[in-house]
Amino acid sequence: MRFQFSLIAIGLEVTMIILFGVFVEYETDQITGTQSLSTHVNGSLDLYPLFQDIHVMIFAGFGFVMTFLKKYGFSSVGINLLIAALGLQWGTLVQGYLYSNGEKTRVGIRNMINADFSAATVLISFGAVLGKTSPVQMLIMTIIEIAVFAGNEYAVGARLLASDVGASMTIHAFGAYFGLAVAGVLYRPTLRKRHPNEESVYHSDIFAMIGTLFLWIFWPSFNSALADPGVNQHRAMVNTYFSLAACVVSVFAFSSLLEPGNRLNMPLFTTKLRIHDTCGVHNLHGLPGVIGGLASILAIAVGETDRHSMDRQAAALFTSIATAIGGGLITGLILRIPVWGQPADQDCYDDAVYWKVPQRTEHDYHFQEYGGHSHQEIEI
Amino acid sequence: MRFQFSLIAIGLEVTMIILFGVFVEYETDQITGTQSLSTHVNGSLDLYPLFQDIHVMIFAGFGFVMTFLKKYGFSSVGINLLIAALGLQWGTLVQGYLYSNGEKTRVGIRNMINADFSAATVLISFGAVLGKTSPVQMLIMTIIEIAVFAGNEYAVGARLLASDVGASMTIHAFGAYFGLAVAGVLYRPTLRKRHPNEESVYHSDIFAMIGTLFLWIFWPSFNSALADPGVNQHRAMVNTYFSLAACVVSVFAFSSLLEPGNRLNMPLFTTKLRIHDTCGVHNLHGLPGVIGGLASILAIAVGETDRHSMDRQAAALFTSIATAIGGGLITGLILRIPVWGQPADQDCYDDAVYWKVPQRTEHDYHFQEYGGHSHQEIEI
Amino acid sequence: MRFQFSLIAIGLEVTMIILFGVFVEYETDQITGTQSLSTHVNGSLDLYPLFQDIHVMIFAGFGFVMTFLKKYGFSSVGINLLIAALGLQWGTLVQGYLYSNGEKTRVGIRNMINADFSAATVLISFGAVLGKTSPVQMLIMTIIEIAVFAGNEYAVGARLLASDVGASMTIHAFGAYFGLAVAGVLYRPTLRKRHPNEESVYHSDIFAMIGTLFLWIFWPSFNSALADPGVNQHRAMVNTYFSLAACVVSVFAFSSLLEPGNRLNMPLFTTKLRIHDTCGVHNLHGLPGVIGGLASILAIAVGETDRHSMDRQAAALFTSIATAIGGGLITGLILRIPVWGQPADQDCYDDAVYWKVPQRTEHDYHFQEYGGHSHQEIEI
Repeated sequence: MRFQFSLIAIGLEVTMIILFGVFVEYETDQITGTQSLSTHVNGSLDLYPLFQDIHVMIFAGFGFVMTFLKKYGFSSVGINLLIAALGLQWGTLVQGYLYSNGEKTRVGIRNMINADFSAATVLISFGAVLGKTSPVQMLIMTIIEIAVFAGNEYAVGARLLASDVGASMTIHAFGAYFGLAVAGVLYRPTLRKRHPNEESVYHSDIFAMIGTLFLWIFWPSFNSALADPGVNQHRAMVNTYFSLAACVVSVFAFSSLLEPGNRLNMPLFTTKLRIHDTCGVHNLHGLPGVIGGLASILAIAVGETDRHSMDRQAAALFTSIATAIGGGLITGLILRIPVWGQPADQDCYDDAVYWKVPQRTEHDYHFQEYGGHSHQEIEI
Repeated sequence: MRFQFSLIAIGLEVTMIILFGVFVEYETDQITGTQSLSTHVNGSLDLYPLFQDIHVMIFAGFGFVMTFLKKYGFSSVGINLLIAALGLQWGTLVQGYLYSNGEKTRVGIRNMINADFSAATVLISFGAVLGKTSPVQMLIMTIIEIAVFAGNEYAVGARLLASDVGASMTIHAFGAYFGLAVAGVLYRPTLRKRHPNEESVYHSDIFAMIGTLFLWIFWPSFNSALADPGVNQHRAMVNTYFSLAACVVSVFAFSSLLEPGNRLNMPLFTTKLRIHDTCGVHNLHGLPGVIGGLASILAIAVGETDRHSMDRQAAALFTSIATAIGGGLITGLILRIPVWGQPADQDCYDDAVYWKVPQRTEHDYHFQEYGGHSHQEIEI
Repeated sequence: MRFQFSLIAIGLEVTMIILFGVFVEYETDQITGTQSLSTHVNGSLDLYPLFQDIHVMIFAGFGFVMTFLKKYGFSSVGINLLIAALGLQWGTLVQGYLYSNGEKTRVGIRNMINADFSAATVLISFGAVLGKTSPVQMLIMTIIEIAVFAGNEYAVGARLLASDVGASMTIHAFGAYFGLAVAGVLYRPTLRKRHPNEESVYHSDIFAMIGTLFLWIFWPSFNSALADPGVNQHRAMVNTYFSLAACVVSVFAFSSLLEPGNRLNMPLFTTKLRIHDTCGVHNLHGLPGVIGGLASILAIAVGETDRHSMDRQAAALFTSIATAIGGGLITGLILRIPVWGQPADQDCYDDAVYWKVPQRTEHDYHFQEYGGHSHQEIEI
């Protein structure tokens, strides 16, 4: 098993490169000689600033929002990077295949945004199993989840013709319930009790705030990038901007109301992350995604829009959740096979299992737990 | 008083939502059927990348630049987020009302930039009272200051027809003098002496550098976003870019010259932040804003531009400072009413008053002060 | 020598301002009256979002990637800021002079991107001497290196007409070999052995990850900003996006393969930074730059492109490396003159030599080394 991770990662990357060579071409390939771009491709370049905003969310936002655990910063950022880098390649291939009608996939900025979205779905699920799984398990989950995600997204968007611009159902609800199903299958009663590593320190919470803020700041781009250009895109930007602001004030108010002593809790996301399934993705993405789906049905019911049908929206919501749970359960069973290097209970939430961490800095993040040991070093 | 913060915050947010429902519509609402946008709205979408740059400044830049205090990182980022989220909603409403001629406010990207600017003004003032005020006090200050700010901005821009593209007078000078006036009224002699919490540690200074850099990096967008498109916007970008670079070299040179032992001081902003009024907003925003205003008068005097009048520029500068000081004094008197939960002297600059901070990590940020206590924990 | 740094920095900045006054004008200056921009300048504004991405890389990316040293965070971010601020002004002047045909340099967004690229070249070299040189030495290196860089870039691009879009040769290879040549001349055998300050702690590694991620996220903008608009720019964006993703998976795989115990090492850049020449710029920029240059020759050999000649590409590669090494050796000899305040061996990699660091926080970053001292403080 010694080289398992390396061999699987290399095997997957070689496969990706071969599949790209065979099935992918530039969307600019049909343009020759003139150097000028078709309208389609120009529109694609207009999306580039929105793409970069989303790219920050995927790599800096998701990566840092999970650094709140005191000993798991390297893994949060590092495995986030690994999942996203593999996921965006695989997402490009699978989504390209589904929408290509047998032709080659023609990639451009729009595909890059969709690829980042594929990765986002897995990163949401990653939150549910954070600290309790190995890098190999995450590679496997990435491959399976993105295949199922792309299938569901294709069914909802291209078959049911349902509307899901903010991706409430296909990304947020899907990613959350997929991850929760995996976490359910991998459930370990011993981790139910508070694990000594499963907590934050002051500085790790501030690192997590960097991620939180970048997710928050660029959310309008996430919600609008693939909306129809013009009025719809404009509306998605404006709505997200003001809704997020209203949410912040409300969350502060209710957080203070519910907290003993009326104190505030580190805002918004990071707090909730500390409930058991590691990251509370149910509250963060699952419920909001379902609410988004229900709201889309309600909007039709009250006549806000006549472009979509209630039946199809309901079917899309049901399909997304059912596919996510089904896919997650199967993935969980595969990950449970005891050959993937899943960390032992006492090694959970600890970078040192998979990473080389700086020496002699124990006190840096868990001084109290190992006070004597640290003291011993002082004597030397 | 137990639920004071929650009730006030909920009340304000409900008010915002109602006012938005009654007085605000999308600027795209008049466009129907065709899905194509008018030139005006298209120009609005071109501003989107500049908006996102400014959005990073408001939430990550201002938020992190104030994390230098060793025990006040949650509050700096969190209350910054709260002020900005409330402020941008209220700013949209007030500025919209002033410029709407009795019609509904039509919101788009340009309004979002202006709303972020409203929030920026309060955040500058926040720097002057950082660590010495409660979240409730900041909610009240946000509401009053933005109303006064919007009135002054309207007087300067729409009545005096003065030029203030970089917002030297209406944001920087206004925000600084408003905050200083509030801080003056709330003055507590006991805080004059160095408070044990009013200092940084090595890591908190590095967190503050994240904020400093993001403010610095995106300043060209801040200064150019609302300039007339074309030559003027181009010039604002180029000027800000090179001016900031020249400032950095100069600040390093003079910082080293003035510091005992010729050592450098953590550059630029963070250093100055440690003088008493907590954040030295006078040096940071007040004086530069006044200098900007005077420069605009000088530019007319030497014939650099003939589009504006010296008289009006001078009136704009005077009006901005007078309104800020007047508004700040009144706000300070209101905040001084002893019912808003202002922290006691010994609780100043400490997250623990308003936030749930991670347990058992005292040593993380103030090990020396509570060495014995920390040691005691080790024994357990 | 007391005011050496201040006097040199002020002298350089005054020189910059005078040279800008004499030799630089806005590229919009010829446009009068109409307020509309020529096509050229409009294209320039289209580049603005790409410029801001690169600006984040230069100031936040390069600055934070070097914060991994436990006691050198202020210097990494601060001297990075100083070098870049001086370098972008000087780069604008030197590159402008070379391409101006005796006319004034007309600056716009494109020049700002080129100026940031000039600064990037010096920042790569800075990595090779990080922690072992004084701010004055870095000012001198900035001035010399950018002059040599601009000369080489002009020779490669405007004389040899070689292709170097991703700047493999003119920035990455050049910056790396220049820095290595300087480091070679400044070599101190005593620093060969592990210096007690030349190591990271857990939190400083996480700070470095912020820089790493921002460099990674915006690399597509770095590689595409100055490509021919249209197909070529589009291709540079797409290629960089997917190549970087493939690299991440591969680096994780090989890092785990080569590391004893198959553990991962903090990804990508930061690890390598710890080999002696301080930052392993050879692995990071030098070799990849050379490989990029060789690949451009290979691409012509296999007929992938017919727009460039193999001879000229080979000459460009050779010229870049030779000029870099030559320039670096001379610069190293100048920096070796013992009047520039180079830090003594025991003071290397320590902010406290040049910066005012927060008091009483020794334990924050080197508790173990000074355990007794820290303990003593506790007793007080």
